[in-house]
Amino acid sequence: MSITVVGSVAFDAVKTPFGERERMLGGAATYFALAASFFDQVHVVGRVGDDFGEEDLGVVAARGTDVTDVERVPDGKTFFWAGEYGWDLNSRETLDTQLNVFQDFQPQLSPASRECDALFLANIQPELQLSVLEQCGETKFVAMDSMNFWIDSARDALIEVIRRVDCVVLNDAELRQLTGRPSIIAAAREVLGLGPSAVVAKQGEYGSALVTEDQFFSLPAFPLEKVIDPTGAGDTFAGGFVGFLARQLDRPLTEPVLRQAMAYGTALASFTVEEFGTERLQRMNGGEIDSRVEELRRITQFEHVAVPLETS
Amino acid sequence: MSITVVGSVAFDAVKTPFGERERMLGGAATYFALAASFFDQVHVVGRVGDDFGEEDLGVVAARGTDVTDVERVPDGKTFFWAGEYGWDLNSRETLDTQLNVFQDFQPQLSPASRECDALFLANIQPELQLSVLEQCGETKFVAMDSMNFWIDSARDALIEVIRRVDCVVLNDAELRQLTGRPSIIAAAREVLGLGPSAVVAKQGEYGSALVTEDQFFSLPAFPLEKVIDPTGAGDTFAGGFVGFLARQLDRPLTEPVLRQAMAYGTALASFTVEEFGTERLQRMNGGEIDSRVEELRRITQFEHVAVPLETS
Repeated sequence: MSITVVGSVAFDAVKTPFGERERMLGGAATYFALAASFFDQVHVVGRVGDDFGEEDLGVVAARGTDVTDVERVPDGKTFFWAGEYGWDLNSRETLDTQLNVFQDFQPQLSPASRECDALFLANIQPELQLSVLEQCGETKFVAMDSMNFWIDSARDALIEVIRRVDCVVLNDAELRQLTGRPSIIAAAREVLGLGPSAVVAKQGEYGSALVTEDQFFSLPAFPLEKVIDPTGAGDTFAGGFVGFLARQLDRPLTEPVLRQAMAYGTALASFTVEEFGTERLQRMNGGEIDSRVEELRRITQFEHVAVPLETS
Repeated sequence: MSITVVGSVAFDAVKTPFGERERMLGGAATYFALAASFFDQVHVVGRVGDDFGEEDLGVVAARGTDVTDVERVPDGKTFFWAGEYGWDLNSRETLDTQLNVFQDFQPQLSPASRECDALFLANIQPELQLSVLEQCGETKFVAMDSMNFWIDSARDALIEVIRRVDCVVLNDAELRQLTGRPSIIAAAREVLGLGPSAVVAKQGEYGSALVTEDQFFSLPAFPLEKVIDPTGAGDTFAGGFVGFLARQLDRPLTEPVLRQAMAYGTALASFTVEEFGTERLQRMNGGEIDSRVEELRRITQFEHVAVPLETS
């Protein structure tokens, strides 16, 4: 099995109450690939400038990830984002966005990237997501992300992408914006009506929820006493989630499998936020991930012994 | 066993995107009592005006609740609060607050109210919470609530209350404000350091978390396609939580018991928000509550079968 991700590979400048980084490796595809590479062969499709060094590419290529389709543009500059987080890390202000070489990104997938079993369309222009879908005809499982900007400005194309994927991964605000429904479960059910079989609602510090045709599942974020930098948490989650699922594609994706995938995504994301950028993600091992998944199980279980209740 | 609650009994005017009520029965003690009365004998200690009718009192007195200590002030007016919720119900604006007879509330507990096994100090002035604590010398379990206003203006008294109770129930923003810590788990651990053995963080649409000395538990809100009015959800939760615990006070409160209490509080709160004010709560039965607790268990369970992970 193999996984392809199409999305941004970037440099970020980030300031949080706990420190800052002037230029760190980032981008949705980077976080996704680092997480998914624990599970399977990953192919990254993206575009960088010649300011993107060999050691940067080396980080993305960890654990055997194929970076052949990361196009390097001579005399080009890599996508740059700068942002600052508020004191409790729940608010974020974008200070600068320079699309640079990403502006003219036209994903061209090599045969190896096309022949993936699982595909993640990270947050890029919906028209480009459609072009990738057309290149990957045989993919067994496709998940996608998007953002408020595309919901506003490219709604029709975005809806067309949603119709063609298996799983939509959006945050609560995006699900509400997309559907105009204040209830997340109602919003997710409306998205399911377009075609996907699963919707994942990302809920930041509160974790995530999974809505399928006849089930609902909710999982908290892994509890941490200290969060340093939330950048990339959502894409790391997606990498763990899709990565886990990619291994299970020889049989139908059942609810227990989807739930366990959510737990792996959540565990992986918890490492990302403990340090800046990909710093923690770069030196993780499988045992650490498994023990956080097990801890997630422990902190969400309870017994229900029905008690007699007064109803007079 | 019996439970005493000291707090507001009020009239509310509420506007949500789904309708409005110009004057409905409300107040923290009202919601708490309605929920806790499913579990045990409840005594309500509060103060109302002579505009508070027999039928209003009859609602509070449901399922045998003792309202002897609800003082009715001749020529007085009942505490009145007016508020309006934003479109996704996550923001709330207070339009009017008239303390009326509640301004001079000096809780005087009858022997029956004092001899309770469990006590809930709803959100009132911390000095009054201390006076109640002094009246209830033998109470086995005491939980408390508070609000941003008291954290700001009566911090020392509030800390003194916290030192003397078993359980603190606050929302995330209040825990952060109280401790200055952005991490909820770190904030809760700091509160535990003052004396309580449990901290419950209320998280609105995302449910709640329980922090004890050596454990953490997170429970989502019950998933609803339609929420009509969130007013009273937190106090209903507290009523179910404390109500369940009140029945277990003949043995030490273990983590499994606390977790199940969280589930009962969560199930009860989910009924409150489905209609305005206490409307739904008034016509609930025990079977409905139990089936939502069971559903909460179903939507939070997952299996963890460790998978081999690449760590090269």
